[in-house]
Amino acid sequence: MQQKRIRDFGVKIGKLDTGMNNSITDVEGVSVGHVTLSEGNCQTGVTAIIPHEGNTFMEKLIASSYVINGFGKTMGTIQMKELGVLETPIILTNTLSIGTAFDALIAYMLERNPEIGRTTGTVNPIIGECNDMLLNDVRAQFIEKHHVVEALQNAGKQVIEGSVGAGAGMLCYSLKGGIGTSSRCFSIDEQMYTIGVLVLSNFGILSDLQINGRAIGKELKEALLKSWEEKDKGSIMIIVATDLPVSERQLNRIIKRSVVGLSRTGSFITHGSGEVVIGFSTATKIPHFKPKHITSIPTIHEEDLDLAFRAVGEATEEAVLNSLVTASHVNGRDGNERPAFKDLLKEFNIQLA
Amino acid sequence: MQQKRIRDFGVKIGKLDTGMNNSITDVEGVSVGHVTLSEGNCQTGVTAIIPHEGNTFMEKLIASSYVINGFGKTMGTIQMKELGVLETPIILTNTLSIGTAFDALIAYMLERNPEIGRTTGTVNPIIGECNDMLLNDVRAQFIEKHHVVEALQNAGKQVIEGSVGAGAGMLCYSLKGGIGTSSRCFSIDEQMYTIGVLVLSNFGILSDLQINGRAIGKELKEALLKSWEEKDKGSIMIIVATDLPVSERQLNRIIKRSVVGLSRTGSFITHGSGEVVIGFSTATKIPHFKPKHITSIPTIHEEDLDLAFRAVGEATEEAVLNSLVTASHVNGRDGNERPAFKDLLKEFNIQLA
Amino acid sequence: MQQKRIRDFGVKIGKLDTGMNNSITDVEGVSVGHVTLSEGNCQTGVTAIIPHEGNTFMEKLIASSYVINGFGKTMGTIQMKELGVLETPIILTNTLSIGTAFDALIAYMLERNPEIGRTTGTVNPIIGECNDMLLNDVRAQFIEKHHVVEALQNAGKQVIEGSVGAGAGMLCYSLKGGIGTSSRCFSIDEQMYTIGVLVLSNFGILSDLQINGRAIGKELKEALLKSWEEKDKGSIMIIVATDLPVSERQLNRIIKRSVVGLSRTGSFITHGSGEVVIGFSTATKIPHFKPKHITSIPTIHEEDLDLAFRAVGEATEEAVLNSLVTASHVNGRDGNERPAFKDLLKEFNIQLA
Amino acid sequence: MQQKRIRDFGVKIGKLDTGMNNSITDVEGVSVGHVTLSEGNCQTGVTAIIPHEGNTFMEKLIASSYVINGFGKTMGTIQMKELGVLETPIILTNTLSIGTAFDALIAYMLERNPEIGRTTGTVNPIIGECNDMLLNDVRAQFIEKHHVVEALQNAGKQVIEGSVGAGAGMLCYSLKGGIGTSSRCFSIDEQMYTIGVLVLSNFGILSDLQINGRAIGKELKEALLKSWEEKDKGSIMIIVATDLPVSERQLNRIIKRSVVGLSRTGSFITHGSGEVVIGFSTATKIPHFKPKHITSIPTIHEEDLDLAFRAVGEATEEAVLNSLVTASHVNGRDGNERPAFKDLLKEFNIQLA
Repeated sequence: MQQKRIRDFGVKIGKLDTGMNNSITDVEGVSVGHVTLSEGNCQTGVTAIIPHEGNTFMEKLIASSYVINGFGKTMGTIQMKELGVLETPIILTNTLSIGTAFDALIAYMLERNPEIGRTTGTVNPIIGECNDMLLNDVRAQFIEKHHVVEALQNAGKQVIEGSVGAGAGMLCYSLKGGIGTSSRCFSIDEQMYTIGVLVLSNFGILSDLQINGRAIGKELKEALLKSWEEKDKGSIMIIVATDLPVSERQLNRIIKRSVVGLSRTGSFITHGSGEVVIGFSTATKIPHFKPKHITSIPTIHEEDLDLAFRAVGEATEEAVLNSLVTASHVNGRDGNERPAFKDLLKEFNIQLA
Repeated sequence: MQQKRIRDFGVKIGKLDTGMNNSITDVEGVSVGHVTLSEGNCQTGVTAIIPHEGNTFMEKLIASSYVINGFGKTMGTIQMKELGVLETPIILTNTLSIGTAFDALIAYMLERNPEIGRTTGTVNPIIGECNDMLLNDVRAQFIEKHHVVEALQNAGKQVIEGSVGAGAGMLCYSLKGGIGTSSRCFSIDEQMYTIGVLVLSNFGILSDLQINGRAIGKELKEALLKSWEEKDKGSIMIIVATDLPVSERQLNRIIKRSVVGLSRTGSFITHGSGEVVIGFSTATKIPHFKPKHITSIPTIHEEDLDLAFRAVGEATEEAVLNSLVTASHVNGRDGNERPAFKDLLKEFNIQLA
Repeated sequence: MQQKRIRDFGVKIGKLDTGMNNSITDVEGVSVGHVTLSEGNCQTGVTAIIPHEGNTFMEKLIASSYVINGFGKTMGTIQMKELGVLETPIILTNTLSIGTAFDALIAYMLERNPEIGRTTGTVNPIIGECNDMLLNDVRAQFIEKHHVVEALQNAGKQVIEGSVGAGAGMLCYSLKGGIGTSSRCFSIDEQMYTIGVLVLSNFGILSDLQINGRAIGKELKEALLKSWEEKDKGSIMIIVATDLPVSERQLNRIIKRSVVGLSRTGSFITHGSGEVVIGFSTATKIPHFKPKHITSIPTIHEEDLDLAFRAVGEATEEAVLNSLVTASHVNGRDGNERPAFKDLLKEFNIQLA
Repeated sequence: MQQKRIRDFGVKIGKLDTGMNNSITDVEGVSVGHVTLSEGNCQTGVTAIIPHEGNTFMEKLIASSYVINGFGKTMGTIQMKELGVLETPIILTNTLSIGTAFDALIAYMLERNPEIGRTTGTVNPIIGECNDMLLNDVRAQFIEKHHVVEALQNAGKQVIEGSVGAGAGMLCYSLKGGIGTSSRCFSIDEQMYTIGVLVLSNFGILSDLQINGRAIGKELKEALLKSWEEKDKGSIMIIVATDLPVSERQLNRIIKRSVVGLSRTGSFITHGSGEVVIGFSTATKIPHFKPKHITSIPTIHEEDLDLAFRAVGEATEEAVLNSLVTASHVNGRDGNERPAFKDLLKEFNIQLA
């Protein structure tokens, strides 16, 4: 099934070209998998991002995190900040299931790395979360360890968007949200580079929604007869992948710019919205065990970062819009429901372009 | 002389009401003064923001700074972060004149506080800067100490905008920029509060400029036959004043949201653009000398911050646009010049609303 | 059973007086509970610190964390930094069991707060860890949810130290380490205040150990015929409780000074040692739901912090030494063992004072 | 004149070997110069650290700063954190003269780099300070621009310590302090590396002073019949140079460990003491203008950092003691005076070893 994405509605975000699939998986080696639980009160799931095809513990990637708004429980950022590396896949799920996700990811890593806890130290799992309590009975903690493993096993280059994986029960601008992705390509000194973004969107209030500068949220809100309490208790997780050769400081500068894209969709980064960015670069593999020779880390000149800044801003904006426009209507916990943006566009005969 | 501001062009930013003068000086006690040097190669100046009418050293204000992009030389933020207070006026000027500004502000503070350096410790001046090297001969360091004192003496409630004070030689989206201001009012539990923003704008490239979602920069760029190298080596200083009772942590959360407004004018926060926010709250005075009784700091409930977040986003966006639309054409260093946005609107007969 | 602590060996750390029990529980309302698993390959456990006697979710405490060295997986610090509060007990356990501890603490909080995930958002559990892989089969993840609940239920004012709770399998300066505690009292304006520290020690190499300036580690190392590979892969968790009225900024300044005490026991804060401090003040309760009136937060004058800085430095130093001197010999995983410091003192007839 | 340093008193700090001169200038390319003003009320000066022999603006060094306690006004750290480089010499002087030092250093840089402010942007001077108000009339701002230039011109490999340069009027543990330096050497994979530290000491109270674990401050305080108000309003600037190939993240980890050395001399890092560390590595030159090929940055394996951590701790401890033991008695402002530690050792016939 081909999903209709924001570009299919005629909306083109920014100036830069997208990658082949306009997806985080345009960065070579990156794959994404989902497990979706969708039945009655249970509207939740798991999304796994695998950063490269090798053993991430043995060959770590330069990585960085950035907290836009820290009302969130993302795990693993303390060590990522200190050591500057990613050494596991990234798991996204609902807020109250991150303990389970941690346990499952630990088991997955221990199985693949018998040295951990024996001849070498520990491993630092990265788990991100948003709170899907409106549509999902989050207190029930539906996620089990095997779901996490299945999401990892499902990982591939094709990324389904919308109400899937960790996005099953999430909202975006008071409508149904969830998973979205996008990418940008650009060349520096005749070398092509890619930045890909995947979001788990769960933030915003309808009247703030903007698409390419148009205040579509206000229009929709007036068109809809009913309305919801517009209290943003959401969150967004933003995963940024790139093949640019950068230091962790440079990578941090890049991922901070995701806030630009977020802002342009209408967000004011509300108090209750945990917004965390995790970024990694596949350009250099940092060996776990000390190699014979000193590692050299190729890094672009600081002035070349501007293209990357633009890329991450544009791709974040488009990934959010993709999460919104691909999501389907969900009937969830205790009869709570949220409409799909795409259904509203039809219902009210709104053209985006 | 009444300046024509962005609202006078029919552009209304955001949902919240402005304060009486739509200015940072809507926050009671705050005043602003300029000294402008504009002749030939010398296109620079000083802008002073006085945070309250008393002795700021003896009665400090809760304050916080936030670095959006640290390609800048703002002075005083280390101590502000550690101690959480502002104890001097804030001076804005060009990059290479902050030493002079420091010296002048020190002299000003020493004169008013004979205890400093004798019976009590030192004082922490806050100096912000942008680089006006295109229109101004920044190497000549035209600013002298007396200019800083004059800017402080000139301070009043009326804020002139555009090519004045520290903004004399600054650019904004490749056009003439400089000083802009705006404010927002909102009520919490029937008490009215104000957030005011003043910007010194010196960033951005024309083709990125957006006004209320409209890609006016692209339009203008196509209309203009000539173009400039669009390399952003700019900066923006953002000063946020409020009378909200907040802790320095809460204030920091507020001022971080200025990036939302910035993003919506079209910025991607480029590498070369030093973007620093300084915020203070007039709600509580922190005594320099230890008082007899423990100080109690009234602080709003965290959930009430959302209105403040929206306010600072909107006011920052509008302050940037005000700096752009009020600025006048300047012929500066070595024949360099930049047109005024308002002149281009006329020339190409563009309506903003 | 009365344990022999460092003062019982004639060693007096610092200038300030201790609290009544020289324990973190000298801070009113604070209690501590352990569950210890000690059999063969299983040498691990859980330690719970309950910050006050009420409902911590409904009445939060001002809190702050500080990362001395981020080679660690402590959970919950992102939100603590953003919101400045502690809203759950603090759980300490081994590195690979923090997922289980998270799950158990979530269940404990959900049970006591039916609003969570229904009419209000989520809860932010604080879980700290050290890696006990030498003596404990950490890969086996022995900790089960009920252990965490039991540790919470065991909480009381009497704190057992040494090879107990989360400290069961931990090392300190290559010897057996684990749980230690200490406190300091001081008066400001005739009001008495207490700072208490609890550590989970698991760091350091023997030859670096210093007690009150004496290089006892070097002496011991020479006396011992056998030696261990002195590679520090440890960690330390430091919990700081106080009844001082402070802002979260001030609290952060206080807890940073724990590094002074740590340094004086001989640590160089090695690469592999995750060292994280969590602090809270019981002076102010921050209500979860918005109260009718604005909250006022009493805060001491900045100059009075110096006593608190000294107190936390001294108490941290003494807590580490208490963890070392109370710990008992443990035979653990695969025949690995570490001697008790107190046994070595006897064996080599060393007087500490 | 050969100064008697702490090792000449028989005190050996730590386990590692010192460099050839036990000085920051043991790091190849680093030189240090002083200008000392010492007459009556004027007891102040300037110390310049030149990081390498080339043009620091054109060939920048990887650099990092760390704020131990931010009651200080150090300039330039915002940009250093963002860009990770040092591009000027480092100037140390008294608190109220950093404006002058900025101006002088700017002039020095402009003269050597005609591109600045013309074809390239600005330059980011690094100025550190301590407050010498007890012995020096700091309000008089005695430092003039030419003093800064002279300190730069005086720079050489031989570092005079004690009451010289910026240290002329500084105190250490209530006695005369000032400039001190020390270094450590160690090998990784048969390659020798050096870490050098220079301090400007101006902190601490006598009764806290410890030398190699001995509470010499307490002894001295009892021996001295008179005493001073022991209020620490001081500061310390710590400059760390190394030739280790490190990323700025790794360098930051290294320089943070200077607090270990500081703690062992007796400091509790008091409220009023601004304590800032600036570090740089000479291993890689980062070109100002974009080079033809991507820059590769050699970086040691994370596990090899432990030696560097120990080195910076030991060298900082020894540099502080050197600043104390080399300083001479000064009669300063308004008859204020502080004795020299070395004179007290003689007077009370105290042997340090």
